[in-house]
Amino acid sequence: MARLNALYMIARAGSGHIGSSFSSLDILSQLYLAEMAEGDLFFSSKGHDAPGLYAVLIGLGRMAEDKLHVLRRLGGLPGHPDVSIAGMVTNTGSLGMGISKAKGMLMADHLLGRRRRIFVMTGDGELQEGQIWESLLSVPKDIAANLTVVVDHNKFQSDFSVERTSSLGDLAAKFAAFGWHVVRADGHDPQVLAKTFAELCDVTDKPKVFIADTVKGKGVSFMEGTSIDSDVEMFRYHSGAPKADEYRQAIEEIEARLIKLTAEVGSGAIEVRRTEKPVVTPVPAESVRLFPAYTEALLAAAGRHPELIVLDADLSLDMGLLPFRESHPGRFVECGIAEQDMVSRAGGMALAGALPVVHSFSCFLSTRPNEQIFNNATERTRIVYVGGLSGVLPAGPGHSHQSVREISAIGGIPNLVMVEPCCPEEVGPLFDWCLAYDGPSFLRLASIPFVTAARLPAGYRPGLGAGVTLRGGRDAIIVAAGLVAVAQALAAAERLENDGRSIGVVNLPWLNRVDAGWLAGLVADVPALITLDNHFRPGGQGQYVLAALAAANVERMPRCLQIGLEDVPPCGRNDEVLGEIGLDAAGLADRIAHFLGEAPARR
Amino acid sequence: MARLNALYMIARAGSGHIGSSFSSLDILSQLYLAEMAEGDLFFSSKGHDAPGLYAVLIGLGRMAEDKLHVLRRLGGLPGHPDVSIAGMVTNTGSLGMGISKAKGMLMADHLLGRRRRIFVMTGDGELQEGQIWESLLSVPKDIAANLTVVVDHNKFQSDFSVERTSSLGDLAAKFAAFGWHVVRADGHDPQVLAKTFAELCDVTDKPKVFIADTVKGKGVSFMEGTSIDSDVEMFRYHSGAPKADEYRQAIEEIEARLIKLTAEVGSGAIEVRRTEKPVVTPVPAESVRLFPAYTEALLAAAGRHPELIVLDADLSLDMGLLPFRESHPGRFVECGIAEQDMVSRAGGMALAGALPVVHSFSCFLSTRPNEQIFNNATERTRIVYVGGLSGVLPAGPGHSHQSVREISAIGGIPNLVMVEPCCPEEVGPLFDWCLAYDGPSFLRLASIPFVTAARLPAGYRPGLGAGVTLRGGRDAIIVAAGLVAVAQALAAAERLENDGRSIGVVNLPWLNRVDAGWLAGLVADVPALITLDNHFRPGGQGQYVLAALAAANVERMPRCLQIGLEDVPPCGRNDEVLGEIGLDAAGLADRIAHFLGEAPARR
Repeated sequence: MARLNALYMIARAGSGHIGSSFSSLDILSQLYLAEMAEGDLFFSSKGHDAPGLYAVLIGLGRMAEDKLHVLRRLGGLPGHPDVSIAGMVTNTGSLGMGISKAKGMLMADHLLGRRRRIFVMTGDGELQEGQIWESLLSVPKDIAANLTVVVDHNKFQSDFSVERTSSLGDLAAKFAAFGWHVVRADGHDPQVLAKTFAELCDVTDKPKVFIADTVKGKGVSFMEGTSIDSDVEMFRYHSGAPKADEYRQAIEEIEARLIKLTAEVGSGAIEVRRTEKPVVTPVPAESVRLFPAYTEALLAAAGRHPELIVLDADLSLDMGLLPFRESHPGRFVECGIAEQDMVSRAGGMALAGALPVVHSFSCFLSTRPNEQIFNNATERTRIVYVGGLSGVLPAGPGHSHQSVREISAIGGIPNLVMVEPCCPEEVGPLFDWCLAYDGPSFLRLASIPFVTAARLPAGYRPGLGAGVTLRGGRDAIIVAAGLVAVAQALAAAERLENDGRSIGVVNLPWLNRVDAGWLAGLVADVPALITLDNHFRPGGQGQYVLAALAAANVERMPRCLQIGLEDVPPCGRNDEVLGEIGLDAAGLADRIAHFLGEAPARR
Repeated sequence: MARLNALYMIARAGSGHIGSSFSSLDILSQLYLAEMAEGDLFFSSKGHDAPGLYAVLIGLGRMAEDKLHVLRRLGGLPGHPDVSIAGMVTNTGSLGMGISKAKGMLMADHLLGRRRRIFVMTGDGELQEGQIWESLLSVPKDIAANLTVVVDHNKFQSDFSVERTSSLGDLAAKFAAFGWHVVRADGHDPQVLAKTFAELCDVTDKPKVFIADTVKGKGVSFMEGTSIDSDVEMFRYHSGAPKADEYRQAIEEIEARLIKLTAEVGSGAIEVRRTEKPVVTPVPAESVRLFPAYTEALLAAAGRHPELIVLDADLSLDMGLLPFRESHPGRFVECGIAEQDMVSRAGGMALAGALPVVHSFSCFLSTRPNEQIFNNATERTRIVYVGGLSGVLPAGPGHSHQSVREISAIGGIPNLVMVEPCCPEEVGPLFDWCLAYDGPSFLRLASIPFVTAARLPAGYRPGLGAGVTLRGGRDAIIVAAGLVAVAQALAAAERLENDGRSIGVVNLPWLNRVDAGWLAGLVADVPALITLDNHFRPGGQGQYVLAALAAANVERMPRCLQIGLEDVPPCGRNDEVLGEIGLDAAGLADRIAHFLGEAPARR
């Protein structure tokens, strides 16, 4: 029943992680129905199996049933666990932190005189993260008995098998070498689960790990990882909603099994409700995407640079790297879920004469290997870092994935130049700029399709620290970067024009470099300057721009307004979230109008 | 001979790592004299054993002999390896990156058709870092034969034994479980070393690790780790120069052994030169230090907060935590060299009702667990992060340790407030503010003694985002934070006063928060505002201040100047480096005078 509900939730949300929710559900059910005592805690370190956990909590009556319809909706259930939702113990979604968190909780329990057990689920690909092994190494003796880790060993990571991505080798031997009591058993059979947990309960001298052999996508035949040849095929149900026909087939299969099971146990029929399929606004035909342009630019660069090596951390599909992987297999390096190792490998490669291009989602790439990027920068080599999924959208996954901090996190690294293209046509030129730049650079890319009125002038060439005017304006100029921010700036300007205001928009693709001369010229004839960050306002591009403006000591300062996120971004549908944070065109226009309508122009 | 030279270098520099240089020297000698072929590379992942490596390279004639006298001097030999020095393969100093770097080099070699072997030395405490295990997990088969790791297993980390800090358990079993070929043998006997390396040379199907049992401080009897009871005593020769009498005794001991050895092998007498002991400017008596005040404030807080837990990552002596450790052993958590685990443990503790206070050097704390600090912040719990060794001084260790990036690295984390006291009296009030703040905070502390004219007004209480005027001025105001920057601002202002300029100085202890109203009032009557960062200028406090000023839309903008570091800080003696980057009082005064002397005040 929880499988059906999790599948429903994900299909309705339009995204979510089926494979991991299904592979973990039998373990979750066993824990919640039979193993955990009052006060005991469970949480998932990987976090993306949240739909499964939500379904279990709803099934237990610990969460309202109507939450089934609001996965990844504003005010609904976040895409990854957040403590603002009752029943969620800690925030996860970025991998590798869970065991550390559990240790901390148990150590605090010990100090404060509380006794409870904590069960932490991890993924298997997740075990490639260095923090996991940091956390396994040092478990204080007085909390060991209360700490149980369950590895949802479903053999697949994002798209490919664990074995093919970055083999874990003899997993049991690794855990044992780190001082843990290890058992390995089936992760679906309730009797095996019961027996295993009972056995672990008796172990008190060491922390415990249960390597549970599971099947990713378990419960729907064509979604199961065991139904494909993992040596060559990609697993297709890691994240993302199922297609309509797949969904229907899957539901039918689960329903049929439910009918059979209820008959077997004589529990009476299960009611499976139907609901109106929500109207999904299709992606507008005129939307553009940046990644196809990136893939093309990368392939072209590979031709020009035989020393170019691509590094990836288990996101090759999402980062547009499959074509490169196919055409240049000897120059594609899959590092697994290990960003620190990946970045320092790139450092070594650059020292040895290669040209490394390093990929991951911005949320991870700018933060997990933060010190490693700095260390590379002190060697003054040429490395291009490419961050995807940048900005507040997509908003469905939640704050672990919404990258609105990278300019702050790495913008201050000496000699590291950060750039962000506002349209597909700008991707190639900026990437080429990075390849030619004699130092480290970061290419920030949005992953979602978006509609934009941004059109670069003919013959446009990026010039360090300078922007390009996309739309003229006399009352104010908005400076922004990136697909979403620039599109929203143009849309707001269009609205404001209808109210008789003349708003210009400048695309400044340089996130942490501002040419003071260019900026001074830009604001010479406008009374107001607005910066718009698809990023936190503190530490964002706008802060670089306004500080540079103040230090430019121009004769007449425009009135200035800095717009950006002020707090952790909310989770929800993209349009909902833009509206919630005031970055929708209407909200933006209102805010700008209000600002322009205030105190008179500077004397 | 290299031991003697390394000891000389460190004594002359006034700081440096004796223990690790000595424990690794026999391995280094064996590698460079007998094992490594033309083109083979060696480097140390831990990096702080650089003096030993320098001594070896000088001994081989690969580095000029006069470099012996310039360890940690401007333009001399950096405290940790830097590629600007011939013979240094890669930059290390922050732990855990070396094996990843070596993998990258070998993979590039493979692509570019180069063949060579790489030997990477690690420490043993270093193996607590998660990145080590990330890097061990995935070694491509085609480079394995050329990769050899040597663990300088000298059983001690910063101050205490590895066993006591965070036990590595069965180290050989761990490496073997990760798919490495492991040997363990003595790390000092040349014949054992020769035999071990020969054996490893023949292993080609797996990457290789040689766990070398060594003695920290080997070669000087009273410095050897085996001469103390590691269960209770601290190792006293990890970092820092030896006292004068210890130095003399150590040199005598090594000389005596040299005489004996040369007689045994019949090689003729070794000439040991004497040189004039350099005059060392003593630390001025009126210098102040922040850490004693911190230790006191922490102990007081521990009394008021029974739920307060202190976390440390192998820096308890340097972070002023020994008194707390002694008086509250049940609330002191030693995490070992594992910052990510430490920070996420703190997150778990906070969720469970404790009040965690997390410690490390700023260079590590704000960068290695960067994502983990963000993740904790999304849970909106109260955690205080305390970063020591902040700023460009001490400049001897080099850029791996000079922390001039933290405001950028974590200042953009929502709800995280960063503060920095300018004098001992401000430490307690700011720390107490952090403890009372309902969210995460970062206390940035300088570690060195420094002379400052900063005196807080009677009854001073920190107010979020607002500074306090330490010195009035009519021609300009300098805004700064911290012991060194504020001291230098005051010293520069004093000089400028002698030239007839009236320069005010404001202490703004808030690094990433500016009260716009306060700021507007501050600049209302001055023609010029100068911000001074003991930090990179991009992303520093000055950037927050100037952006806030621009967005405050004041009637009349002062002329603005932002001062901070522009590039990777140089290594050298403190006074040399301040002068080199223009943060010495004279250089600062000149720069400000030049700025004030320029174009007329804003119309």
